[in-house]
Amino acid sequence: MTNHEVKTRFAGDMAFEASSEGQVIRMDADEAVGGHNSGFRPKPMLLASLSGCTGMDVVSLLRKMRVNFSDLEITIKAELGEEHPKQYQWFEVVYSVKVDEPDREKFEKAVKLSQEKYCGVSAMLAKVAPLNYKINWL
Amino acid sequence: MTNHEVKTRFAGDMAFEASSEGQVIRMDADEAVGGHNSGFRPKPMLLASLSGCTGMDVVSLLRKMRVNFSDLEITIKAELGEEHPKQYQWFEVVYSVKVDEPDREKFEKAVKLSQEKYCGVSAMLAKVAPLNYKINWL
Repeated sequence: MTNHEVKTRFAGDMAFEASSEGQVIRMDADEAVGGHNSGFRPKPMLLASLSGCTGMDVVSLLRKMRVNFSDLEITIKAELGEEHPKQYQWFEVVYSVKVDEPDREKFEKAVKLSQEKYCGVSAMLAKVAPLNYKINWL
Repeated sequence: MTNHEVKTRFAGDMAFEASSEGQVIRMDADEAVGGHNSGFRPKPMLLASLSGCTGMDVVSLLRKMRVNFSDLEITIKAELGEEHPKQYQWFEVVYSVKVDEPDREKFEKAVKLSQEKYCGVSAMLAKVAPLNYKINWL
């Protein structure tokens, strides 16, 4: 059993600082709602979490498969619904990467393993709304 | 319709940097799995997102209700399952705060409104696993 804990301190106006294992991230809101835009917004942080989770899976699988790659970037798009509580309606994950053509099948395999077997954040968010992914070869 | 987008760049070894609306957050893994512990872990970032989402709701509701408060801290605990893909099994949100006794009912109301009506991250994570919350008066 693994328990995770995050402690988040109110930092004035609309800002909050979340701490976990010695790391701190700052969140803040838009000026239109009383914030100062001094940190990440909470909802896009869900998308950042998804990108990091699958990204770490993919790079560690590529290393095991001895695949060279460069310029890896993961873009997550999601549509937020209009009704309260506002929730994402779908997620799209795009992996952009330079990989030599003979190794592209291995890259596809790494992505598929992450999305279907290893990435807990993908599995969790897929319970919230449909989640699709694709690869963009650079 | 509101679309959110996060772009996440691979930053070497196990590190990634996610960008959204001019803000950047760094993620990294443990040294045991090839990281350098130079950023937040992706899964606890889900918990940070939850704390910031409900925290911003609560402070803006308290302002509208003219409730004074101090020392607000939100602690999120969650248990991660053992089987791949590893997912949270439950979430617990604890709001710790100093509020004068006559205003405590208003604080409770703000928390309830956030959890039941406004906080999209709570609503989304409640689809993943049971989510409970409580208040700890300081």
